[in-house]
Amino acid sequence: MELTARDIATYLNGELEGNPEVKVSGFARIEQATAGTLCFLANPKYEDWLYKTKADVAIISRTFKLREAVPYTIVWVDDAYRSIAAMLDLYAAQNAVKRTGREHHSHVSWRAKLGKGCYVGAYAYIAKGATVGRNVKIFPHVYVGDNATVGDDTILYPGVKIYPGCRVGQRCILHAGAVVGSDGFGFAPDENKRYQKIPQIGNVVVEDDVELGANTCIDRATMGSTIVHSGVKLDNLVHIAHNVEVGRNTVMAALNGIAGSTKIGEGCMFGGQAGIIGHLTIGNNVQLAAKTGVTSNIKDGEIHMGCPNLPASTYRRSFVLFKNFSSLQAKLLELEKEVHSLKSAGGQ
Amino acid sequence: MELTARDIATYLNGELEGNPEVKVSGFARIEQATAGTLCFLANPKYEDWLYKTKADVAIISRTFKLREAVPYTIVWVDDAYRSIAAMLDLYAAQNAVKRTGREHHSHVSWRAKLGKGCYVGAYAYIAKGATVGRNVKIFPHVYVGDNATVGDDTILYPGVKIYPGCRVGQRCILHAGAVVGSDGFGFAPDENKRYQKIPQIGNVVVEDDVELGANTCIDRATMGSTIVHSGVKLDNLVHIAHNVEVGRNTVMAALNGIAGSTKIGEGCMFGGQAGIIGHLTIGNNVQLAAKTGVTSNIKDGEIHMGCPNLPASTYRRSFVLFKNFSSLQAKLLELEKEVHSLKSAGGQ
Amino acid sequence: MELTARDIATYLNGELEGNPEVKVSGFARIEQATAGTLCFLANPKYEDWLYKTKADVAIISRTFKLREAVPYTIVWVDDAYRSIAAMLDLYAAQNAVKRTGREHHSHVSWRAKLGKGCYVGAYAYIAKGATVGRNVKIFPHVYVGDNATVGDDTILYPGVKIYPGCRVGQRCILHAGAVVGSDGFGFAPDENKRYQKIPQIGNVVVEDDVELGANTCIDRATMGSTIVHSGVKLDNLVHIAHNVEVGRNTVMAALNGIAGSTKIGEGCMFGGQAGIIGHLTIGNNVQLAAKTGVTSNIKDGEIHMGCPNLPASTYRRSFVLFKNFSSLQAKLLELEKEVHSLKSAGGQ
Repeated sequence: MELTARDIATYLNGELEGNPEVKVSGFARIEQATAGTLCFLANPKYEDWLYKTKADVAIISRTFKLREAVPYTIVWVDDAYRSIAAMLDLYAAQNAVKRTGREHHSHVSWRAKLGKGCYVGAYAYIAKGATVGRNVKIFPHVYVGDNATVGDDTILYPGVKIYPGCRVGQRCILHAGAVVGSDGFGFAPDENKRYQKIPQIGNVVVEDDVELGANTCIDRATMGSTIVHSGVKLDNLVHIAHNVEVGRNTVMAALNGIAGSTKIGEGCMFGGQAGIIGHLTIGNNVQLAAKTGVTSNIKDGEIHMGCPNLPASTYRRSFVLFKNFSSLQAKLLELEKEVHSLKSAGGQ
Repeated sequence: MELTARDIATYLNGELEGNPEVKVSGFARIEQATAGTLCFLANPKYEDWLYKTKADVAIISRTFKLREAVPYTIVWVDDAYRSIAAMLDLYAAQNAVKRTGREHHSHVSWRAKLGKGCYVGAYAYIAKGATVGRNVKIFPHVYVGDNATVGDDTILYPGVKIYPGCRVGQRCILHAGAVVGSDGFGFAPDENKRYQKIPQIGNVVVEDDVELGANTCIDRATMGSTIVHSGVKLDNLVHIAHNVEVGRNTVMAALNGIAGSTKIGEGCMFGGQAGIIGHLTIGNNVQLAAKTGVTSNIKDGEIHMGCPNLPASTYRRSFVLFKNFSSLQAKLLELEKEVHSLKSAGGQ
Repeated sequence: MELTARDIATYLNGELEGNPEVKVSGFARIEQATAGTLCFLANPKYEDWLYKTKADVAIISRTFKLREAVPYTIVWVDDAYRSIAAMLDLYAAQNAVKRTGREHHSHVSWRAKLGKGCYVGAYAYIAKGATVGRNVKIFPHVYVGDNATVGDDTILYPGVKIYPGCRVGQRCILHAGAVVGSDGFGFAPDENKRYQKIPQIGNVVVEDDVELGANTCIDRATMGSTIVHSGVKLDNLVHIAHNVEVGRNTVMAALNGIAGSTKIGEGCMFGGQAGIIGHLTIGNNVQLAAKTGVTSNIKDGEIHMGCPNLPASTYRRSFVLFKNFSSLQAKLLELEKEVHSLKSAGGQ
């Protein structure tokens, strides 16, 4: 891909400042950019790099004001992050793997259905009764269990495991090692305190446009379905327990753990390593800071931190005091001394 | 499966209230139940659903008292959770996969032993010297390393990896992507602060009736064995380090991490994302709240929370004060003012 | 392997105390040792076992002083941990798997390059354009994507997945289920609050002498590279996000999560379940206690704890007060009473 600054400005409907003829042939982060590359600035943390980058073209949001002249060409846009995403989409579309067909040593049961335009890599296993839609990419070492379904245009990266009876929607992306449909963690202690397994006869339903990170695990329901609604994005190593429901367009960073039967609303954002205990209800558009440990229901739109969770403002205020705890204690001891000296002075 | 309420009551030795002839053909959660299904109530959180459920039969613990009449048939039992488990067992037994035999493209070394009645899926790999018991189910993409052993009636779901020399007992269930026997994390810095690997020449012993969740990892011992005793249940994405010992019937929720050489007693229950540092001793029947970070030994039967861990009652008491920290600070400042005004009044 | 105490002392350049002719044929932990075994003492926590162990030979650091006579032979050394490591190396070298060659049903593209002396297990998949160095061990179910490279003497355990275009250096060890190169977690919300994927067109570069634990995941960069520098050791189930850089010889215990674009220095040590938010800079030789949640930059050599992170000494001091919070509150209430009685006494 070789583009001029003018091409880029035209494609993005941006405003050009500098030489429109300069050419770039690749993307780079602003702090790593070399000659011949295109970079962008969206996060103000990297603003200083505007004056140091070696890129030939930069996409910058109009909200930024330059403090000094820069030697490269600028394409001013409304939202640099979305603009670079658009450029990356263009690049990715041109470079997309157009692999189709079945490789040797793949296993597709004659009682499975496979749509047109699929790729099935070597050592992939599609069990009997499974239904795979059109243009699905199934990489090596993927397992699709009995009667499972996979929707059109979905990508299953190497080593993804989908247990029997589970359903994955259209345009989903499941990264390497992701597991859909392992048994929920359900046991009942017997009279000898040994745990007897509760059979987990439900399934997992992953709707459309969901992305699951590498080695993320979603357990099947005890009965009924564990549901991941459309547009949900889960990062790597996330755990979703049995009978959980994750609302549309909710995103969770890596290493989140959601315990059984908890219901999470739409449009939520959870930082890394957050966790929620079982049987709770989390509203829509809830935000959790990284490492939050939720032990109570949360209402729509609230932002929580800490473990057990508190509204972020409460937590932050208390944490500042926690940090300065010893000065507060010192003040208390000082006061104690003063009171005692007052008492002596008063002859008490 | 179609059963009458009378069949269910008879099977569970329960007491029938309502129409004994009504038929059900499936299970459902109380809040999702439709006509023709059987539901149950064990968790008081869902009690309100007793008056709203659409199920035709409900299994309820005798300890519940109904506030109003319900239109469906009730089977009263001592313990609804165990009763529904029994019903699910019945269902699961009827629907169990009775697969046996070796699929094409599975690899079983001629120097491995395989008991009667096993299933070995395509692309499974059983290395030389491995010993697999009777009626073992080995799904596709499983790896059983050199000289490893797997006991009778165990299930290895797709992608399970058992390293050489490790032992897995009878009636175990290992979910997709679980790893048994990866190297312990042992390094010694040399004079240049580079870490030299300490060879990990021990193994992992997983005893009988153990369940390991998806993508859970158990490291082999530096020397000797990392031991997971019988009846232990580990949820998804749990990490057990080298030379750890987990006592009988201990259960850990997802994303727990247990560091090297720590010894955990029997009958413990750990909430999600808990962790324990290395070389500690945790007693029997210890409970850890979710996200507890244990840095000191814990005695039998104690319940701990927080990081570093504190007895739960201490932690809760302190946390309430933490939450109201700013009002406590306000009170201190108020007091300070009063003391100063007292001092002025006293002419000091 | 059968060695006399004299052989061991000579090999380690240690000082012998006791019978030089006694023979050992295996290694054991000091608390589990039986007759005929060699044990060691490096961690003072296990000192009591010196007087109880059944080992025939013990390697002990010279810094220890025996409180009483022991019946076995001692080899005194400068550093028992490094000495036992040397003994284990000797043992491991003698027992190392010298497997080479390709097993049946492995897939090596004719457009891939494979160096001399490699082992490629059954069901391993090496895609077109991939370059694998010499003496690389590729176990069953490994995936090496298009144009990926793997350096000499590296070991890829069963089920490792390396995405297209990623680079793994020499003498690396990747444990079962480790994933290198899954997409970074990058999305931009559109006007309907649905997340649009930002294509992740960068790669992952893992330099030499790196060890990755089981099921650890390293995401590819949005653009440029996620870099794991040489000598880094990551334990099981660690998450490294896109565009992170991990400095030389840094070690992280299990279940760490490092968010996007964070830059970590050299020689750092992170306890288990620690996490760092995105776009931060962590200096060299930084230490994080287990479960630390880092939300701000950290300077060279600092030790941090808590969430949000504080210098360890600050955190510990505040935590002691937190633990005794209720006594502090009691003191405050007591003081309040006294002040009020003073006020009354003063006629105010």
